[in-house]
Amino acid sequence: MSSTFGSHFSISTWGESHGAGVGVVIDGCPPGIRLTREMIQRALDRRRPGQSDIVTPRNEADAVEILSGVLEDVTLGTPIALSVRNKDQRSSAYDEMQHTYRPSHADYCYDEKYGIRAWAGGGRASARETIGRVAAGAVAQAVVQTLCPGVEVLAWVQQVHTIVCPVVPEEVDAAVVESNIVRTADAESAEAMAEAIRAARSAGDSLGGVVACTVRGCPVGLGDPVFDKLEATLAHAMMSIPACKGFEVGSGFAAPRYKGSEHNDAFYMDGERVRTRTNRSGGIQGGISNGEDINMRLAFKPTATLMLVQDTVNDAHEEVQLRGKGRHDACVLPRAVPVVEAMAWLVLCDHLLHQRAIARR
Amino acid sequence: MSSTFGSHFSISTWGESHGAGVGVVIDGCPPGIRLTREMIQRALDRRRPGQSDIVTPRNEADAVEILSGVLEDVTLGTPIALSVRNKDQRSSAYDEMQHTYRPSHADYCYDEKYGIRAWAGGGRASARETIGRVAAGAVAQAVVQTLCPGVEVLAWVQQVHTIVCPVVPEEVDAAVVESNIVRTADAESAEAMAEAIRAARSAGDSLGGVVACTVRGCPVGLGDPVFDKLEATLAHAMMSIPACKGFEVGSGFAAPRYKGSEHNDAFYMDGERVRTRTNRSGGIQGGISNGEDINMRLAFKPTATLMLVQDTVNDAHEEVQLRGKGRHDACVLPRAVPVVEAMAWLVLCDHLLHQRAIARR
Amino acid sequence: MSSTFGSHFSISTWGESHGAGVGVVIDGCPPGIRLTREMIQRALDRRRPGQSDIVTPRNEADAVEILSGVLEDVTLGTPIALSVRNKDQRSSAYDEMQHTYRPSHADYCYDEKYGIRAWAGGGRASARETIGRVAAGAVAQAVVQTLCPGVEVLAWVQQVHTIVCPVVPEEVDAAVVESNIVRTADAESAEAMAEAIRAARSAGDSLGGVVACTVRGCPVGLGDPVFDKLEATLAHAMMSIPACKGFEVGSGFAAPRYKGSEHNDAFYMDGERVRTRTNRSGGIQGGISNGEDINMRLAFKPTATLMLVQDTVNDAHEEVQLRGKGRHDACVLPRAVPVVEAMAWLVLCDHLLHQRAIARR
Amino acid sequence: MSSTFGSHFSISTWGESHGAGVGVVIDGCPPGIRLTREMIQRALDRRRPGQSDIVTPRNEADAVEILSGVLEDVTLGTPIALSVRNKDQRSSAYDEMQHTYRPSHADYCYDEKYGIRAWAGGGRASARETIGRVAAGAVAQAVVQTLCPGVEVLAWVQQVHTIVCPVVPEEVDAAVVESNIVRTADAESAEAMAEAIRAARSAGDSLGGVVACTVRGCPVGLGDPVFDKLEATLAHAMMSIPACKGFEVGSGFAAPRYKGSEHNDAFYMDGERVRTRTNRSGGIQGGISNGEDINMRLAFKPTATLMLVQDTVNDAHEEVQLRGKGRHDACVLPRAVPVVEAMAWLVLCDHLLHQRAIARR
Repeated sequence: MSSTFGSHFSISTWGESHGAGVGVVIDGCPPGIRLTREMIQRALDRRRPGQSDIVTPRNEADAVEILSGVLEDVTLGTPIALSVRNKDQRSSAYDEMQHTYRPSHADYCYDEKYGIRAWAGGGRASARETIGRVAAGAVAQAVVQTLCPGVEVLAWVQQVHTIVCPVVPEEVDAAVVESNIVRTADAESAEAMAEAIRAARSAGDSLGGVVACTVRGCPVGLGDPVFDKLEATLAHAMMSIPACKGFEVGSGFAAPRYKGSEHNDAFYMDGERVRTRTNRSGGIQGGISNGEDINMRLAFKPTATLMLVQDTVNDAHEEVQLRGKGRHDACVLPRAVPVVEAMAWLVLCDHLLHQRAIARR
Repeated sequence: MSSTFGSHFSISTWGESHGAGVGVVIDGCPPGIRLTREMIQRALDRRRPGQSDIVTPRNEADAVEILSGVLEDVTLGTPIALSVRNKDQRSSAYDEMQHTYRPSHADYCYDEKYGIRAWAGGGRASARETIGRVAAGAVAQAVVQTLCPGVEVLAWVQQVHTIVCPVVPEEVDAAVVESNIVRTADAESAEAMAEAIRAARSAGDSLGGVVACTVRGCPVGLGDPVFDKLEATLAHAMMSIPACKGFEVGSGFAAPRYKGSEHNDAFYMDGERVRTRTNRSGGIQGGISNGEDINMRLAFKPTATLMLVQDTVNDAHEEVQLRGKGRHDACVLPRAVPVVEAMAWLVLCDHLLHQRAIARR
Repeated sequence: MSSTFGSHFSISTWGESHGAGVGVVIDGCPPGIRLTREMIQRALDRRRPGQSDIVTPRNEADAVEILSGVLEDVTLGTPIALSVRNKDQRSSAYDEMQHTYRPSHADYCYDEKYGIRAWAGGGRASARETIGRVAAGAVAQAVVQTLCPGVEVLAWVQQVHTIVCPVVPEEVDAAVVESNIVRTADAESAEAMAEAIRAARSAGDSLGGVVACTVRGCPVGLGDPVFDKLEATLAHAMMSIPACKGFEVGSGFAAPRYKGSEHNDAFYMDGERVRTRTNRSGGIQGGISNGEDINMRLAFKPTATLMLVQDTVNDAHEEVQLRGKGRHDACVLPRAVPVVEAMAWLVLCDHLLHQRAIARR
Repeated sequence: MSSTFGSHFSISTWGESHGAGVGVVIDGCPPGIRLTREMIQRALDRRRPGQSDIVTPRNEADAVEILSGVLEDVTLGTPIALSVRNKDQRSSAYDEMQHTYRPSHADYCYDEKYGIRAWAGGGRASARETIGRVAAGAVAQAVVQTLCPGVEVLAWVQQVHTIVCPVVPEEVDAAVVESNIVRTADAESAEAMAEAIRAARSAGDSLGGVVACTVRGCPVGLGDPVFDKLEATLAHAMMSIPACKGFEVGSGFAAPRYKGSEHNDAFYMDGERVRTRTNRSGGIQGGISNGEDINMRLAFKPTATLMLVQDTVNDAHEEVQLRGKGRHDACVLPRAVPVVEAMAWLVLCDHLLHQRAIARR
């Protein structure tokens, strides 16, 4: 089902870029979890446009309203409906999009699949769709951290174009990430990346990159072997984020460089706790969390919207040229960080509830 | 749900390595599709052990039985149950596995998650579990190729350890892939790869690599935007294959190297058909197939089973050493190829049925 | 999942009686279906309180807003979010409900299940929850009648307390049903039923009854044999309506009175069409529609809310007395009619989309 | 999905009457539950044909094999595959069924829906399909009784044709039910019912009836309000049993006879326990179990297979006569009893696992 995600903690997002608003309904949230509007709004504020000079200038407060499922800041166990009204709808800026297919955008495919398309601002394919994910992710975070204190999810921009942040996952500090507008893990990289993004924007061009994400303090035993392995559901979640082109966990695409004798993570006892000396497994073995940090990396393509002339075709199947207009987000990665974290929380929450269902205790 | 995959064409696999057998039930297969036992057996023969000197010598015919859902080589629309009996169960060779956790295997995590484990041969975490996938994949292939003639799925070993096959996806020939025991795309790479695998096996060590997969002739319009994007469900499917550590589509992890102006795929008219001049999108835009080849790459870690002494712990949480015994598969990639293809067919079939449900016609 | 219904045409309802509002998100609606706000509002107007002197006086316009998924009165194929704001929230009238369990209401069970409860107005257990069903049902109706013209769903009040409307299903006329405030099938019954309801209300008491529902023009072939038989999913749908205590199809609970030779529906040819001479099967055989009218009956208990003194316990587990206050709906049946129809449309739509997915054509 | 039932404890049944066999795969069974082959076989023995002179003489041992998911009589948490081979396949006796539609059977609808049909013995529509339900029900029972000791499910034949067993649900004794071949609740009724069945069989005719089912010791809090109310999922489960035409819970179709003041179940304190003085709710309020007995009744039509001449049509759409041949089960109710119990266990298990997922503790 297109817009529904999760088996136990199940979310359904809705909303087009230039419709009345966007939102999400969460079905399956446990009762008795403390949840305030501010917890959700704080997550949305990290995602919203206009936070700095390197992201899209679309100016939306993205104020969330809790429509149901919460009473006096506590979840009821009933569906939680969250809604954000659209405000800044300058659809005239997008008139060209009505008939011309923007290269590497969803326009053509939507038209072919559905025979109809909410063309203004990208409609359902707009990045605004991720508002529902981030809002639901904040709820998932509250659930996980209540039922299982100590779990932390941390994402950061590890690469923009060719600039790679050298900090290793174990040493990334959330406060540092949040202290710079790129959301990378050290100040020097932040400066270089911001500069590159500004240059790309000035040129009407765009940049991609890599977002890394680590889960710390994950309990052992999350993840369902076979099809719903923890890494498989994380991959599903992450690859569903717009512009994501690749996913890897642990050693990832570097795995083939190792021989088995180099790659295997030897077990040892750390006091009472079974641990591994290395973590090429990325915190998951046999599809199940083993208690080590879960390390992931996601590749993002450069934004498809450009302020440049491009060759394309229109919906009459004529070859035409498209001249970029409207607002331009030269690099989505800083704003992708809270989306990546949200997707991780959603996956963890779903597996945690499942594990509670079957576990002996 | 752990062992169930797919929404419309839904499969449930079952079976432990050393139990009575392994198999799959397919619920949701359309009626009236021609399906013979041979079509399924042929797929399984490509997956079974003992095909050559570079894969595991476990000798199993893996003969499939169709238990239901098919009458006189035509599907009935009712569940198709497929079963393969286990034969070669030398569990004595695995006695050590009962209490000792093999590094980078699922043993420890299973014990922690379930409190019980079918230790012989890896139980449910054994590669034998993929038999159900391959059998079901053959059925999915029959469905897709009947309802939508012209679709082809082709996977091959693109890399073993540091040896990379240079053939580009567009030029890979299925006959060449099937003509060499490594299942790579040219004879020279095949020889080098086979040699590397033999050397690793002699050393009691193991190798990983990369499997590439391309879908040719895919109709426009498959894939559900938002959570069940075509690439997201493919990632889910592929990352659920044992030992898979990374997934990428189109430009994948190379995407960040491009600027937007370099990365965008310009549309043009090829006769009546809308096409793109480049294919960095990998055949998918906005989560929906655009009719170009769907190109994926999967990273596989080196097999965790080694014929070497390794440090580890046992289920009494004592640090011990493990001495590899039993059968040894120094490189799973040749046998992973049909599994990758099967997972691609399953995903395509599921999306195709969904599209038929909603499409105007 | 509690508040989600349907596999292909999947709806998630949300909202408490005295929260911000109630609504529904529909995921899986086909694109290109004509759908106006009025089509949904009209359905809601039939469900809303205050339509006549025999239903609850709670006065709500229940104005629906389409938040997403529709462009210029045509469905986009993306999620359709529908919302109705709560207005008339006199929660002071319900203060007693905060700690006292109303007999035969959900209060006690919610407290035990969730440990928390939106007590005002019944919260999620309020009849206001059915607004989401009726709104989604109007969309399902549009889909079914577009893809499969000629299907009609018609429900009516067949019994109130001991007063039974004698009109047989084949002769029930929608215009007659809508012409009387009870929504029964003839004027004489309507008058007697209305009188009985008024008398019950005057006494602070309440009445139950039977709603009958017939589907005319249903195509042959809807319904999945085994677990999702058409009658099983209809039963699920109908028994999920608040206060529904029984469901029967075709001969129903009268079936045992017949011998097989009396009960079997003989097939015959009606021109080109295979038909049955009798219809004890109720339009469904082997879980699949056979083209005859689908006839169902649903038993509703009398409303649990009374304006009388009742013995009960409170949340401190003390025995107390409850004195009815607030608004009182002495008989829910007239307003249950559009809810029953909505649930029938939802089930039909889900099966129709499934059948399109698997059918040869 | 046709042949899959349950969200957490999910079963997929497979098998045609005259294929290789029938069976079920259970996905989602918790680990660590004691489960022996005998526990499943015992349930199947109560369902199998040939137990007495009043049921079908088809003689099948119906020996179950556990293919996976269980190690040394303990569940592993992995899928449990159960299989029963078909033995007594006298398809020649059914030759006429290949082209002639048996009245009130599924033949015609299968042909229209699927365009193909396993005609021998009714194929998937055969009562043999219920073997998978009963086998899975035995596993569900083991899970529920392990996680929640004290729950009991008891079904019995309450009516055959016009003969009604007068024992009230609270006084039905499992030992008495099992001591007579009809599986009714007292010896006198048993004799009368058996006589009626023998007479019907001699006449080539058949009888229907009512099966009652009660759940004792159900914990408070099972059932999901809104769509997956406990009574709604029970109705779904029961109405999916072949030949079931009606379902009611608590007061059921008698509910309308009461006024609200007569129908409401007053709460009182029974020591520490909140109880109701009457139980017209049937143990469920607001869709959630309240700890009282859950009382259900199911109507079954008389078996459609008759040893009499019947008017019908064939697959060439000619009007023809059908002359009953082969084995004849004049009354399915005694064998429906274990099927009804199995469906109740499956529903309870699913809700119990869900409640464990969300409950605070």
